[in-house]
Amino acid sequence: MEAFSDGVFAIATTLLVLEIDLPTGAEDDLLGALRDQWPSYLAYLVSFATIGAIWVAHTVVTEFLDHASSVLIRLNLLLLMLVSFLPIPTSLLGDYIGETDPERVATIIYGVNLLLVSALVSLLWRVAVREDLIKPDVAEVDRSMITRRLTPGLLGYVVMIVLAWFFPLLPVLGFLAIAVYILVPLHLLRRRKTSHSPKDA
Amino acid sequence: MEAFSDGVFAIATTLLVLEIDLPTGAEDDLLGALRDQWPSYLAYLVSFATIGAIWVAHTVVTEFLDHASSVLIRLNLLLLMLVSFLPIPTSLLGDYIGETDPERVATIIYGVNLLLVSALVSLLWRVAVREDLIKPDVAEVDRSMITRRLTPGLLGYVVMIVLAWFFPLLPVLGFLAIAVYILVPLHLLRRRKTSHSPKDA
Amino acid sequence: MEAFSDGVFAIATTLLVLEIDLPTGAEDDLLGALRDQWPSYLAYLVSFATIGAIWVAHTVVTEFLDHASSVLIRLNLLLLMLVSFLPIPTSLLGDYIGETDPERVATIIYGVNLLLVSALVSLLWRVAVREDLIKPDVAEVDRSMITRRLTPGLLGYVVMIVLAWFFPLLPVLGFLAIAVYILVPLHLLRRRKTSHSPKDA
Amino acid sequence: MEAFSDGVFAIATTLLVLEIDLPTGAEDDLLGALRDQWPSYLAYLVSFATIGAIWVAHTVVTEFLDHASSVLIRLNLLLLMLVSFLPIPTSLLGDYIGETDPERVATIIYGVNLLLVSALVSLLWRVAVREDLIKPDVAEVDRSMITRRLTPGLLGYVVMIVLAWFFPLLPVLGFLAIAVYILVPLHLLRRRKTSHSPKDA
Repeated sequence: MEAFSDGVFAIATTLLVLEIDLPTGAEDDLLGALRDQWPSYLAYLVSFATIGAIWVAHTVVTEFLDHASSVLIRLNLLLLMLVSFLPIPTSLLGDYIGETDPERVATIIYGVNLLLVSALVSLLWRVAVREDLIKPDVAEVDRSMITRRLTPGLLGYVVMIVLAWFFPLLPVLGFLAIAVYILVPLHLLRRRKTSHSPKDA
Repeated sequence: MEAFSDGVFAIATTLLVLEIDLPTGAEDDLLGALRDQWPSYLAYLVSFATIGAIWVAHTVVTEFLDHASSVLIRLNLLLLMLVSFLPIPTSLLGDYIGETDPERVATIIYGVNLLLVSALVSLLWRVAVREDLIKPDVAEVDRSMITRRLTPGLLGYVVMIVLAWFFPLLPVLGFLAIAVYILVPLHLLRRRKTSHSPKDA
Repeated sequence: MEAFSDGVFAIATTLLVLEIDLPTGAEDDLLGALRDQWPSYLAYLVSFATIGAIWVAHTVVTEFLDHASSVLIRLNLLLLMLVSFLPIPTSLLGDYIGETDPERVATIIYGVNLLLVSALVSLLWRVAVREDLIKPDVAEVDRSMITRRLTPGLLGYVVMIVLAWFFPLLPVLGFLAIAVYILVPLHLLRRRKTSHSPKDA
Repeated sequence: MEAFSDGVFAIATTLLVLEIDLPTGAEDDLLGALRDQWPSYLAYLVSFATIGAIWVAHTVVTEFLDHASSVLIRLNLLLLMLVSFLPIPTSLLGDYIGETDPERVATIIYGVNLLLVSALVSLLWRVAVREDLIKPDVAEVDRSMITRRLTPGLLGYVVMIVLAWFFPLLPVLGFLAIAVYILVPLHLLRRRKTSHSPKDA
């Protein structure tokens, strides 16, 4: 399950680049043509950061897992389907930012995809805890810390999706902020430094 | 063999997304343009579910395998070729659903590809059993259960391909149902819960 | 080195499918439009079989390897570059079969790519033998058998490239025959059955 | 971290081939049409060699690593994002070499991407040394040798980017030279031969 998941995450992040269309016939002003494409680059950045953050969260979950159940493997497959689908909303976002009406649609579709991905990672963890699939030596404090860390992202995505109705561009920066928040592990760093755990993520 | 197979499965599922063409110049009604593309999204869903189901079945087969023979490695390569090819019929399906005549052709080609993939997984398992490549500690009841579980899909695909001649859209939903049937492991779940096996798929 | 190589082989085989262009606007006669594309499907089949054969040969080489030297890792990288490049000649072949003059060019370019890939696998093995990187327990008879098996392909490719100048389509079938010859391990099967080696490829 | 990184490197190198556009409608003179595309093939070669070189350097760093810290995993993710992005500048280079003004822009963008990738591998190593994440049995002489080997590339890229302003094509060959310099491990070969280390890269 881990090798297959890592493969899908790696491919999904790398395929994002194929959704960036290059300027053609921009002999006169290549730099200007590239500058006009900033939405595509912003969308690439946000999607890469988000898949990266989800991959880190997924790694933490699988690391603490003792074994996988049938249900978990199916949920994981669903998660991978949603991660693999992300290049589509990313491309939509890159194409339609700056055009009032479709921008709103693209941002909401993008946000819903991120919300579903996030919700599935959370669900994966909760199912693993409930089905007692976590390694027995994982402390209770670690378990509840992970549960807590996986939750605010969900709320953040909901808020951003609602905001997208009024200010379409702002939520895109919000999505980036959520990914960075998951990626910069302040609390984890502080805790881990004192416990000197040999392996952390 | 496992790493290479997992890689091909992971890439094939992720490449499916590249076959979805995005609406261009849909500034006026992006949501409507996306709605009109439902065949592409349906084809994506069915193909992802099918490759996922085949991957789960493949994992079960390789897990019970003690070692691979030369013949098995070649059959596996043939299976991977057919799995890698799936994006083409998927794209055909997404392009031609809704247009009476080509829809029939696209559905039948799609169904034949799925049938061949399914048949090869079945064949892989039967060859492994006949060549005595299965781990000796796998119980007879497990062996025959897997043989039984891999068979109905084959019959289902044949039925759907015949149906495609008369009702082209219905079989597509049938293909999805077969994938979900393989993915939702009712019997496995029941059996495994009682035997408390540490690793299941 | 093995994980990276397996990854590149897996991706190169899977990307081949992206070089097949689908018929657009073939509402009237989809089946006929697909039939007209047979060169693309033939090229896909030949390339998949060849990369598969090269992957099997590569697996045999790495399996017998005790450790990799710096030179070997660089040669391997060169091999992977040539394997990754194969989708381009494959696509050329699919596009230009049937048009007398470019067909010849496309077949020769395709053959040269296959020849170089084959030559590099052979070189990889010879360097490994000369630098004494083979596992000490590999019998002399196995060493010379592998050396012998890797050679005829080279000669075959040279013959086919020369033939391509006069009969452009024939060599394409010849390339397929060479791949199948490498894939069907007659001698290996016979030897291995008597020695009961637990792992073969 | 290693499996995911290897996956991204493998996919990024393999995706490069998708950025090469094939000549269409070149029935009259296919060979000439391909010859006119030399910038695309040159860009492919330089990018493949560079990703290969960075992958080798990355392998050396992770091989000497005892464990990864949270900071290292994030830096690694940033490195992978920049590696995944490389197909875009590669494609720009292939499209605009030979057209005075955009050629300069494309070369500089390409060089800056390579510089950033190189700088991040260097940073990764320095952080690993500073955070004391290196295996305790790695000799001081090895540590400083790696630090020294990772530095000249950085300077080389800066020189080439400055040169690109005046002679746009020359730096492209310079980028190739830097990749080859990293790939041909003169010093490593000499040192390792005397120490008979079983595993080197």
